[in-house]
Amino acid sequence: MPSSTVNQEHNENLLTQVTEYLDAGSSVEIRNLIHSLYPAETANILESLDIEQREKIWGVIPPSVMGEILIRVGTEVGQGLLKMTDRKDLIKATENLESDDMVDLLHSLPEPLLSEVMESIGVHERNRLESALSYDDHTAGGLMSLDVLTIRPDMTLEVVMRYLNKRGGMPSSTDSLIVVDRSDHLLGVLSLSDLLTNKPSTKVANAMDVRVRGIPYQMSATEVAILFEQRQMLSAPVVAENGRLMGRITIDDVVGVIREEADHSIMSMAGLDEEQDMFAPVMTSAKRRAVWLGVNLLTAFLASGVIGLFEATLEEIVALAVLMPIVASMGGIAGSQTLTLVVRGLALRQVSSANAKQLLIKEVSVGVVNGFLWASIVSIIASLWFQDMDLGLLLGAAMIINLVCAAVAGASIPIILDKMGIDPALAGGVLLTTVTDCIGFLAFLGLATIFLL
Amino acid sequence: MPSSTVNQEHNENLLTQVTEYLDAGSSVEIRNLIHSLYPAETANILESLDIEQREKIWGVIPPSVMGEILIRVGTEVGQGLLKMTDRKDLIKATENLESDDMVDLLHSLPEPLLSEVMESIGVHERNRLESALSYDDHTAGGLMSLDVLTIRPDMTLEVVMRYLNKRGGMPSSTDSLIVVDRSDHLLGVLSLSDLLTNKPSTKVANAMDVRVRGIPYQMSATEVAILFEQRQMLSAPVVAENGRLMGRITIDDVVGVIREEADHSIMSMAGLDEEQDMFAPVMTSAKRRAVWLGVNLLTAFLASGVIGLFEATLEEIVALAVLMPIVASMGGIAGSQTLTLVVRGLALRQVSSANAKQLLIKEVSVGVVNGFLWASIVSIIASLWFQDMDLGLLLGAAMIINLVCAAVAGASIPIILDKMGIDPALAGGVLLTTVTDCIGFLAFLGLATIFLL
Repeated sequence: MPSSTVNQEHNENLLTQVTEYLDAGSSVEIRNLIHSLYPAETANILESLDIEQREKIWGVIPPSVMGEILIRVGTEVGQGLLKMTDRKDLIKATENLESDDMVDLLHSLPEPLLSEVMESIGVHERNRLESALSYDDHTAGGLMSLDVLTIRPDMTLEVVMRYLNKRGGMPSSTDSLIVVDRSDHLLGVLSLSDLLTNKPSTKVANAMDVRVRGIPYQMSATEVAILFEQRQMLSAPVVAENGRLMGRITIDDVVGVIREEADHSIMSMAGLDEEQDMFAPVMTSAKRRAVWLGVNLLTAFLASGVIGLFEATLEEIVALAVLMPIVASMGGIAGSQTLTLVVRGLALRQVSSANAKQLLIKEVSVGVVNGFLWASIVSIIASLWFQDMDLGLLLGAAMIINLVCAAVAGASIPIILDKMGIDPALAGGVLLTTVTDCIGFLAFLGLATIFLL
Repeated sequence: MPSSTVNQEHNENLLTQVTEYLDAGSSVEIRNLIHSLYPAETANILESLDIEQREKIWGVIPPSVMGEILIRVGTEVGQGLLKMTDRKDLIKATENLESDDMVDLLHSLPEPLLSEVMESIGVHERNRLESALSYDDHTAGGLMSLDVLTIRPDMTLEVVMRYLNKRGGMPSSTDSLIVVDRSDHLLGVLSLSDLLTNKPSTKVANAMDVRVRGIPYQMSATEVAILFEQRQMLSAPVVAENGRLMGRITIDDVVGVIREEADHSIMSMAGLDEEQDMFAPVMTSAKRRAVWLGVNLLTAFLASGVIGLFEATLEEIVALAVLMPIVASMGGIAGSQTLTLVVRGLALRQVSSANAKQLLIKEVSVGVVNGFLWASIVSIIASLWFQDMDLGLLLGAAMIINLVCAAVAGASIPIILDKMGIDPALAGGVLLTTVTDCIGFLAFLGLATIFLL
């Protein structure tokens, strides 16, 4: 019986295979292929297809795994799939989900549907879910699962093992049992590996890890992820203000948070939303992107306005018009390097008011050094190009000014935005470009007006 | 005994606290604080401090935890710390590490030091490590730990439990035992939870999960991370080509990969390297950033060259110089939205040649829609501003051309780069800007030369 290994190019091949079957209309092959996949794989494929193809695939998915898939696609793709789903199938889809996944799915249902699904659930379960639904999606409460195995500190390990064996089955990704007192206050955690390797006669109280702290249910998902990484935890108990156990967060939830946040930073830098459907209808996509283009148009007109102040100068020396984008563009690049460094530092909690000043000094120094370096190079090139040394020198001076301003703006804009509670990844780039464009044009054309006219 | 919870603002406060102590020179307080931290927390603090402060903190860290910290800081910060470390301390630092962490640390040691440390390790361990060192850092082989608990299929669960209990202790994050035959071929995996919940008289062969596939040791770390996420695994066995078990990857390694990759995408878009020290000396940072600025200067001069072709036109109509940055800038923004979407799709394996054509059509359509929308708006504004309707119409036409070209470039550049094996996150932005700047200026000034002169 030789062991089989995972195919390296698996995901890409899958997509190619599915589209081939779709093009050929081979519905039996599609059905067989889809039924052999993990829910996350199917979710990934659905996101990679356009809406028409997606509908064909969704049609062959059994209701029992629909729930697992729905919670794994982006919000917008999910909304589209829900519209294609029969109500009865949807109710069936919810039945196989664990409580935290169930809550995620319920969060995404529009109102009439939500009530219908809730009514199909037993009373006890409904009450549990209703309280879970009240927690914010982006907090520990929203991440946690309600299915927790708890034990008492005065049990022996032998009793615990007998209890587990009689109970049979554990919630998924259970790596440890949570130890609570009679009123459900968190006392500690007993890992399955400690349970198995300690003497059976040992009391739970003597084998459990008491250093484990409960995560407050209001803690943000971001903080939870940082905590899991720093302490290399596989799971952690979530507690209420009074120390009572509420649920349990496992590392697979945390992996989702990390992936989403990385996604969010990258997408929001381009004014995009990570939950949006890559294959949304053209008009929908165009409308959304238009907002970002509009914001940037304001910036562009502001820069044009600055140039407009110097129309008389430009009329005299047209070479200025040829060279001016260089100053603005180099400022933009240098500034975005500093901006990226600081935005990342803020996200990793490595930049705060405690070291902001040192970082600013360092970035400005880098700006000065690179300013002088590139100023001398562009000076020489421009002097030779236009046979005008004064013009070259002016270009260099403007470059130095803009690179220093870019460093100041790149370092301070994200810190200020962060303090104001605005996402620096989203707004930082536009603000920075406004500064580097305007100062670039102002410095170059301003200096030219003073010294060359 | 009320349970304690984790402080939400923990990380930021820590940094503030540390810098306060450093400023006040309170070495006893620093020592106490640092000793109370997790290695990852200390690593984070070290990365947030400048080099001078870093040296002070490193001085109070006991050698026994130095190893855990060294493997958690970025490469460059780590190199700096190694220089501050006594050789004897370094050898002590390696003693407490698990094999995969040990390999990570050894990877980062410069040659004379590496041999010295290797000699201090026992022969058996050295041989194991030497083979592990030969695997690429960014593959399953580089991620895996060599410490694996294996069992045989014909044991009963009761025997397994007795064996574990006698053995005492398990490798960290052990959630399952790996089942192998006599010649170490992977047969399946027995989770601790299945071990505990099945009848003790059950044979391992009947309780184990045989669906688990071995990960080939050459699989890239990126693929491993995708696999872990899709199948929601906590750990997975790594196998050689012949199916023999080589080691085990746990989810905490995968979390590290995901974080690093996200980091890498964000940093490389600005031409930065995620392993670099935020507080590197000014000249070192300046030198590195200079390369990126130089690449972009070429782009900028290329764009200037395009403008230079139209000097005569600009001399006639200076308003063109005022308005031309608008066309280039809007093209850059629209293009970067498409680029970001495609780069992310490639990273998530949601974009491949199977759906590239649909995506291109969609993006170009969005470009056309937004082109016409913003063309009409800028036409009106420019017409009113310069009291010249022809000028406004030309600006609009150039905008449509550039937004469509931006969509084509934004969608095709990353796919082409990816096929060529070049990181699209690194090179995509520069190439895109070159296209949108040059085409923007060319379209606007070219149209003006034809129709306005």
